[in-house]
Amino acid sequence: MKTVKDYIRTIPDFPHKGILFRDVTTLFSDPRGLRLAVDQMLHPYAGMRIDKVVGLEARGFILGGAIAHQLSVGFVPIRKKGKLPGPTLGESYTLEYGKAEVEIHEDAIAGGERILLVDDLLATGGTAEAGIKLIERLGGTIMGCAFIVDLPELGGRARLEGMGMEVHALCEFEGT
Amino acid sequence: MKTVKDYIRTIPDFPHKGILFRDVTTLFSDPRGLRLAVDQMLHPYAGMRIDKVVGLEARGFILGGAIAHQLSVGFVPIRKKGKLPGPTLGESYTLEYGKAEVEIHEDAIAGGERILLVDDLLATGGTAEAGIKLIERLGGTIMGCAFIVDLPELGGRARLEGMGMEVHALCEFEGT
Repeated sequence: MKTVKDYIRTIPDFPHKGILFRDVTTLFSDPRGLRLAVDQMLHPYAGMRIDKVVGLEARGFILGGAIAHQLSVGFVPIRKKGKLPGPTLGESYTLEYGKAEVEIHEDAIAGGERILLVDDLLATGGTAEAGIKLIERLGGTIMGCAFIVDLPELGGRARLEGMGMEVHALCEFEGT
Repeated sequence: MKTVKDYIRTIPDFPHKGILFRDVTTLFSDPRGLRLAVDQMLHPYAGMRIDKVVGLEARGFILGGAIAHQLSVGFVPIRKKGKLPGPTLGESYTLEYGKAEVEIHEDAIAGGERILLVDDLLATGGTAEAGIKLIERLGGTIMGCAFIVDLPELGGRARLEGMGMEVHALCEFEGT
């Protein structure tokens, strides 16, 4: 029986030479793969009250939409700067070369709401850290950060755990 | 009882002066709103065999993830050029100013698969038309094109129906 990891394909040299890109589209496009990923990502939160799912643009939207629907809760997107139409809060973070900024609608989360943050892959954790700060600035309580893939050598898990987060990933890959 | 349309908020002058932006994030962030949208988008296809859901970047990913999960089928993204890591097919389309291109993984759909195309909003239909061409080039059969919002004055529905598509939308708004 295939595991979640078995559905993920590796594309060498994307987006840059020397990078092994872990491609989850082959997981999502398989009916069993998508269901397995959603179900397993929710296991750690069984019986916990979650009020909203927050997903990071863009692959976190696919997963986040499915997970929010499964939980019968709302979904909130965190997007790249300039994409959300209403009043927003922003957080910038450092990339390998330069900076980027993500935003959330300032009325998307109410104080005290219990949030599950989801994305496909945890690498350096820069985007996830910015997302956590945005959720906390709105008064949300983060119940967990759930990923399909963790690349432990890039230090994202340690970074988020250092912020007091509970981090769950369905599988790990060596290398970057 | 609120309808899907009641959950959508209108933001004036986004992304440009004079545009009334129909913002579905307030629909997605509400637990009842998200479920209502997914359920109603699937009504026309009850009892029909659908093999895969295809969603257009980026808001179509939220909806597409939820709908694919609900149907227990796979999800395939159509993305802006350069975002998909594997071998792709591309289609360009005309924007108000200039051109854009969207891509699909060339192995994402097998010949004869029955596809539901979803996005949040149908305006001129340019992106949807490009998406339809990509699906058809891969040999997929499009069972329907489902949107939350139709802006009939922009002609997207007529354009897609002219390609032989069945178009369903949950609500309409006047103006652009």
